[in-house]
Amino acid sequence: MFNQWISQSMNQGEPISAASARAISAQRRQGLREELLAAARDIVDQHGLEQLRARDLAARVGCSLGTIYNLFSDLDALILAVNATSLEALDRAMARIAPQEPLAHCLALAASYLDYAVENPRLWDALFRYRLPSNKPAPDWFFALQDRAFSHIEAPLTRLCPTMTHADRRLLGRTLFSAVHGVVALGIEQRLTPMALPILQAQISLLVSAIIHGLPVTLGTS
Amino acid sequence: MFNQWISQSMNQGEPISAASARAISAQRRQGLREELLAAARDIVDQHGLEQLRARDLAARVGCSLGTIYNLFSDLDALILAVNATSLEALDRAMARIAPQEPLAHCLALAASYLDYAVENPRLWDALFRYRLPSNKPAPDWFFALQDRAFSHIEAPLTRLCPTMTHADRRLLGRTLFSAVHGVVALGIEQRLTPMALPILQAQISLLVSAIIHGLPVTLGTS
Repeated sequence: MFNQWISQSMNQGEPISAASARAISAQRRQGLREELLAAARDIVDQHGLEQLRARDLAARVGCSLGTIYNLFSDLDALILAVNATSLEALDRAMARIAPQEPLAHCLALAASYLDYAVENPRLWDALFRYRLPSNKPAPDWFFALQDRAFSHIEAPLTRLCPTMTHADRRLLGRTLFSAVHGVVALGIEQRLTPMALPILQAQISLLVSAIIHGLPVTLGTS
Repeated sequence: MFNQWISQSMNQGEPISAASARAISAQRRQGLREELLAAARDIVDQHGLEQLRARDLAARVGCSLGTIYNLFSDLDALILAVNATSLEALDRAMARIAPQEPLAHCLALAASYLDYAVENPRLWDALFRYRLPSNKPAPDWFFALQDRAFSHIEAPLTRLCPTMTHADRRLLGRTLFSAVHGVVALGIEQRLTPMALPILQAQISLLVSAIIHGLPVTLGTS
């Protein structure tokens, strides 16, 4: 992106010195943006979303409040950026799982999702509990990141339901992800009677196994 | 409870007149408590949990702020009482479903849960999104209400998995409820790409059917 900016500036016939001064400034902005994002992520990770305040963040990074709002349009944009890093981490964790037969693959994906939630409870909570104000829908690039994180379930579903259309498989993948998410959420949030981790792991395995065994019967492809 | 209080007072040899004066006062307290609860529920239902403020509630019911805190220990206790009425409504909706063969019964229960969430989005949201402060665990009576609302899934599971222990069946019932809850939550909260209601209904039916078909295979009881 930085290189692209340079070449655009040069193509427009700007003097090199002005272009390079602006490039340095763009580089600085990007560096500061990353620093702010890392500090915000750290606050959410350590203390929870409720403790993320622009004033504290500015003090921590050593910049002015104005700088934050210059780099992120508002606190919602900053939280969205933090949540995007969580989606990317989830995506990387699931991408590391080697392709294998559908049941084992789905079990590994579900276990990896539970692990992420257990190891990063406050980041995971921020990802699912934070709501943008109703007049600010999430941008398309955020939905694309979500879709990418869920897409890992599509490979085993393709092997399991080879005749299903791509659209139906995507929908089913999202449903299975949501089902596992529900068990993880109501399990680790301790909203219901608290559930110990090994029991939660066993219940998720039971759920995923039942779904994978039952899907071909339900879809009439068994 | 009111009668019990009267008889306790009389057993303790208090003069009838004092007991009856106190009984009237207890009755008034109960009436005002119910009025406050109904008004709070109405605010959450119409405007969402964020709009529930003690000051507005006092103005609406025509009592002092002190009266609210005399009848509910704090706002958390009031929200818990609102959420309890939602659990009771869910319980009544599920209790109305006639016993039938396991798959049809589970499909009807899941559909009834989705209906409740769709028809009462803000009450449903308050039930699942509100968190008590970490130093205030929910009281046992609240967990008992949750257990009762989930218990309706146990009848079809008993028919489906007759050899399962009662404890395992309760755990499985909670897992299946959580799975359906996850699909409902990520479907209607529009946190992911928005999903139309008929598609959501079809996905929930697909999930429940797959689970019910696959459970006996997974449990080795098919």
